[in-house]
Amino acid sequence: MRGKNNLAAFFSPSSIALVGASVSPGKISGVILESLMNSFSGALYPVNPRYGEVMGLKCYPSIEAIGSPIDLAVYALGAEAIPGAVLEAGRNVKGAIVVSGGFAETGPKGAEIEKALKEAARAAGVRVIGPNCMGIYDTVSGLDTFFIPKERVRRPESGGLSIISQSGSFAVTAMDELATDGIGVARVVSYGNKSDVDEADCLDFLADDPETKAIAIYIESIQDGRRFVEAASRCSARKPVMAVKVGKGASGISAARSHTGAIAGRYEIYKAAFRKAGIIELDGYEDFLVACKALGLTTGGAGKRIMIITDGGGMGVNIADACEEMGLSVPALPEEVSDELRSLFPEYFTIGNPLDLTGSATDESFALALSKTMSGDFYDMVIVAALWGPPALTDNLPGMLAQKPGFTEKPIIACTPGGAYSRERIRLFHEAGLPAFSTPEAAVRAAAVLSKAGVRR
Amino acid sequence: MRGKNNLAAFFSPSSIALVGASVSPGKISGVILESLMNSFSGALYPVNPRYGEVMGLKCYPSIEAIGSPIDLAVYALGAEAIPGAVLEAGRNVKGAIVVSGGFAETGPKGAEIEKALKEAARAAGVRVIGPNCMGIYDTVSGLDTFFIPKERVRRPESGGLSIISQSGSFAVTAMDELATDGIGVARVVSYGNKSDVDEADCLDFLADDPETKAIAIYIESIQDGRRFVEAASRCSARKPVMAVKVGKGASGISAARSHTGAIAGRYEIYKAAFRKAGIIELDGYEDFLVACKALGLTTGGAGKRIMIITDGGGMGVNIADACEEMGLSVPALPEEVSDELRSLFPEYFTIGNPLDLTGSATDESFALALSKTMSGDFYDMVIVAALWGPPALTDNLPGMLAQKPGFTEKPIIACTPGGAYSRERIRLFHEAGLPAFSTPEAAVRAAAVLSKAGVRR
Repeated sequence: MRGKNNLAAFFSPSSIALVGASVSPGKISGVILESLMNSFSGALYPVNPRYGEVMGLKCYPSIEAIGSPIDLAVYALGAEAIPGAVLEAGRNVKGAIVVSGGFAETGPKGAEIEKALKEAARAAGVRVIGPNCMGIYDTVSGLDTFFIPKERVRRPESGGLSIISQSGSFAVTAMDELATDGIGVARVVSYGNKSDVDEADCLDFLADDPETKAIAIYIESIQDGRRFVEAASRCSARKPVMAVKVGKGASGISAARSHTGAIAGRYEIYKAAFRKAGIIELDGYEDFLVACKALGLTTGGAGKRIMIITDGGGMGVNIADACEEMGLSVPALPEEVSDELRSLFPEYFTIGNPLDLTGSATDESFALALSKTMSGDFYDMVIVAALWGPPALTDNLPGMLAQKPGFTEKPIIACTPGGAYSRERIRLFHEAGLPAFSTPEAAVRAAAVLSKAGVRR
Repeated sequence: MRGKNNLAAFFSPSSIALVGASVSPGKISGVILESLMNSFSGALYPVNPRYGEVMGLKCYPSIEAIGSPIDLAVYALGAEAIPGAVLEAGRNVKGAIVVSGGFAETGPKGAEIEKALKEAARAAGVRVIGPNCMGIYDTVSGLDTFFIPKERVRRPESGGLSIISQSGSFAVTAMDELATDGIGVARVVSYGNKSDVDEADCLDFLADDPETKAIAIYIESIQDGRRFVEAASRCSARKPVMAVKVGKGASGISAARSHTGAIAGRYEIYKAAFRKAGIIELDGYEDFLVACKALGLTTGGAGKRIMIITDGGGMGVNIADACEEMGLSVPALPEEVSDELRSLFPEYFTIGNPLDLTGSATDESFALALSKTMSGDFYDMVIVAALWGPPALTDNLPGMLAQKPGFTEKPIIACTPGGAYSRERIRLFHEAGLPAFSTPEAAVRAAAVLSKAGVRR
């Protein structure tokens, strides 16, 4: 049943049945139905023997009663009812997403139900995502089984990043952060207990998916290490693949076991597997988000040489420190560049790397500094740390930087620490296509990820 | 001239002269005058021979012309004019804040002017803060010489945290972040080139200051290490003192030299001095902010044993990992506690540490979990990681947690990652007096700082 091409039912379904559809919009199935009615343009069939109609759609007593085969069935029933429902649907369904909990993650009784689900799926010849998961949020197909209302968790717009995650809450939270920050995604898959479809299956699909430009993976445990490394290697040869593995220390491992019934295993083994598979290793939640923002908006740089341009001397020093701590270099300005800058700028600007434009900075001085330092082959990436105190700085700055005066490829990372005024400016950078971060450390972490993503190519 | 009691003119002035007052509200002196007119209730004298009146206040041609001694003079003039002005004011002034740049940080010519400023100050018997600094923002005295308009940089309300910083931009940015997040401050001092008043002088004052409950220091370089260690030791015996030293690696050190003309020195020396002085060492900007938020809202915990309560399993695992990485422990639940919790909670809750209340979490289940795990002597601190997906969670949660059901002293740290909805909830936690963070890593960093601050007592 394994193979790289049989996940199409999940990622480009033309028909969806929602099993356990409910007339109550607050329930899990109600949230899913509402989302699908808004975003999915294919055929949509609520299934529940108790209702003739749900939210204005005709409701069917069973999948069989729909009368034609269905690409995807989404199950929102109590755990115990699911194996039977999957068996009953039989070959009328290609793919099943089981969002319900109450399986192996709850103990021996749930593990028995999960075993029955696997057997039912095998008998019916259906692939399964879940159980105990959020399912799929997909801006390409319009599928959205994430059962949390949009008021609480925003949905990202269309973009080139795909996220696959064992933890539903991790996927949900990352999606919400990216949506709030204006970063788009292609596909987000939460597979929970992964009774069938796992990260390797998803990687097989995403490797060939033209909509997916970069992939971020959240891992608690991997069962089949060899298959994972094969799939990830194939994928990372085509696009950047990044992964965070949680459950590293003793407490984390024990917590991960409780969470999805998984044995987390020694972290060193994962590190080695990541290296072998060409996966960029991420440290934890913060690093995961930074990486998603960076590769959701830009592509990798070709090396580790960082130029720092700022209007706040202290912030520049902090960024230089963080670069060295994270294995990046901050080479001094070449003499010809510093001579030219000295002739162009007032004498109280600090000409060096970091380059400090002081409180007299203007949009134009930032753009000029960018052009003069980045047009030669001296640096691979630039971190522009703009504090918004200087009165001459305007909201045109992000757009002026994004023109990349004098160069084309090298990534620009913005850093704009501060309160309300600065935080609102982050979105302006994102709209201009430049990843922007609230702290020096996050900006440097982004540079480190981009440098790894670029070197990989 | 040194001594712990002669900074009173800076921290409780009854009269202030603004030298270089301008009729143009956009200029540095205009911003300062506007701030002072709003926040300072003592006598306020604009000084500028070119005007008879500035912003409705009588303007004096010189400090001497005011006709009575002044506690504090704020100089917003071109660098070259300042030594003469200080000398002219002579003994009519007790303290001087020189916000202007153009001194040692700009090169040999500026260094000459700074030397002249020092000589003038010595001759006049006046203490100087600056030059090349933002001066003082003080919620106790109402002094505010930070010359960036409030639209761009917010001012924190009254609180117990004091910040002293060599870098003006660092102080400004931290203030803005704290104000936006609803964390108050007592005094913020930016002393820039510290031609006279330095961190040791400020520490001497703050040690005896009843308004200051905790102190955070930003350091690029320290000249008199022995005096610093003495002052910091005396201070840290009374209240938590935290410090970040930037300019650690080669690039950072060279950047710091350009920034304030300071020789940053080897980081190991600072580490040893911090240890000797009982200072809590902070890593960089992120760590500095986290520490300010934590000790701005709560006091230290007595140890390193962390309880984790969450409604998102993946987040719990991530927090457990981060605790171990940062030297904290995540002890398992004592058997009697887990037995009791098992009898109280549904079987699909994961009873352990982390304790996972799942998507079925309610305000009440969080409060009950808090009470049962924290009322005995099993843990020193608790991290409550609330994801806002669960529909039953309400805005009452922070207030219910803040009642600390069944215990009194131990700190509660909230972690609430996510997008717009979650970010807005951070303020609710702060209003309830609980420090709250957007990422697991930041919450754990806060726990690490609080554990050091508590053990210190």
